[in-house]
Amino acid sequence: MVTHIANSNDPRLDDFRNLNQSDNRPDLPGGKGLVIAEGPLVVERLLASRFPVRRVIGFPAKLESFFAQPGIAQLMGGVEVYSLDRPTLAEVAGFDMHRGLLASADRPAALPMDEVIGNARTVAILEGVGDHENIGSMFRNAAGMGVDAILFGNGCADPLYRRVVRVSMGHVLRTPFAHFGGKSTTWHKELALLQEAGFHLVSLTPDHQAEHLSDALVDSSGKPYEKVALLIGAEGPGLRERTMRSTNIRARIPMAEGTDSLNLATAAAIAFYERQRSLR
Amino acid sequence: MVTHIANSNDPRLDDFRNLNQSDNRPDLPGGKGLVIAEGPLVVERLLASRFPVRRVIGFPAKLESFFAQPGIAQLMGGVEVYSLDRPTLAEVAGFDMHRGLLASADRPAALPMDEVIGNARTVAILEGVGDHENIGSMFRNAAGMGVDAILFGNGCADPLYRRVVRVSMGHVLRTPFAHFGGKSTTWHKELALLQEAGFHLVSLTPDHQAEHLSDALVDSSGKPYEKVALLIGAEGPGLRERTMRSTNIRARIPMAEGTDSLNLATAAAIAFYERQRSLR
Repeated sequence: MVTHIANSNDPRLDDFRNLNQSDNRPDLPGGKGLVIAEGPLVVERLLASRFPVRRVIGFPAKLESFFAQPGIAQLMGGVEVYSLDRPTLAEVAGFDMHRGLLASADRPAALPMDEVIGNARTVAILEGVGDHENIGSMFRNAAGMGVDAILFGNGCADPLYRRVVRVSMGHVLRTPFAHFGGKSTTWHKELALLQEAGFHLVSLTPDHQAEHLSDALVDSSGKPYEKVALLIGAEGPGLRERTMRSTNIRARIPMAEGTDSLNLATAAAIAFYERQRSLR
Repeated sequence: MVTHIANSNDPRLDDFRNLNQSDNRPDLPGGKGLVIAEGPLVVERLLASRFPVRRVIGFPAKLESFFAQPGIAQLMGGVEVYSLDRPTLAEVAGFDMHRGLLASADRPAALPMDEVIGNARTVAILEGVGDHENIGSMFRNAAGMGVDAILFGNGCADPLYRRVVRVSMGHVLRTPFAHFGGKSTTWHKELALLQEAGFHLVSLTPDHQAEHLSDALVDSSGKPYEKVALLIGAEGPGLRERTMRSTNIRARIPMAEGTDSLNLATAAAIAFYERQRSLR
């Protein structure tokens, strides 16, 4: 069932070749890489996800302990599994991969926006967020604090990059996401769709004139809005003015005088926490 | 006033030699490195701090624009300034330092605990936090959200490491900190000092039995405690049981089922936010 591969040139290992460059695959549709999961936790989450898994590879001992975990066997289906030694994997990947357990998957069809927001009560919407680590952290924090979906506006990095998958601890494979389809200059108009679906749209901004975050998530009687979308812009520029103008309210996390704004993923985590808190 | 140095072996550049190893200086007291600030924002914060600045070095253009900023000249005092070119700095530092502006300072005497907690209303206490990036992020977030001081229990990394200074954006040079002096096994007994000083001690834990964070920061009538100390343990093990037993209450940030705990600095940021929110 597990085939051992000794030759690093074996084409059955091609999914994992030169991993530091694996996010760019001119030979694949859209030039985008396969989805790569690293380590037992993330590989398990990939196997349990909607993503069509292609291969699992690993050091013999790592595969053995992985398959000994309860529930893994049922997740495997017909996935090909190859074992290989550490030096062979280092040659394939291009660097020493001490984790020693990896899986690849094809990119599935994008989820339709309607389906993603269908039953969602809390969503995050990103604009211009190009940092893979921030996107990964946001998926991790969103999952932890009950955010149902993440929606991508204009100018965001690909959430299926290897680094995002890793930093998210695999949550990007579980939490549904979708992209707005409009042009870079007009995507914010699609926010009206969410308003029609009953979402209260909240722009996060460091602007001192904005409402305190905790006030922005409840109505005038102190009741939390039934559905909330939290909009988050890039560190530095933040959300564009016209995007904020398409939302219901601007909210700030108060900061002490003379300090810097928070890291983006941290600010998002606080907003997710406040939303969850408002629903207690 | 600014002296140009062309020879990378010039001893006046020694403070900045092999920066990747500069945190270990067997030739200095305690074997600890000098304090190194990188980039204009952090160098400015170092100049404005209680730390005795030794030298400022930089590319000629970087120094020029730095000194053109309002207020910088007054902060300089008698600090030596040397300009050098990018290849010279790369030879000194051991890698290409594109920021091109650096400063060094001696480690000042530690602040006495009494002085650090004297006027503080909110403090964070760390135990077993060895990750420099987490410590740096905590100082950044603490400054942003009005935490007055950070106190170190047993087993924490040195807050004056180069990486901490950088990640904290220089806030480790501004926010007072102090170390508990007791033995590794008994330091938690010193927490009684804080209780005597009127602090309500709150242990952060992922334990489902713990109180919701927002309830733990207010008394039974909903009034925020006058002084609060937030205790934060390492990612993974968390606070030790006997440390938590020395505190007034255990508090959790609620997490969705089947998700991982938050990154340490993120959890701390949420606690800082909740404390600030309770004082509105």
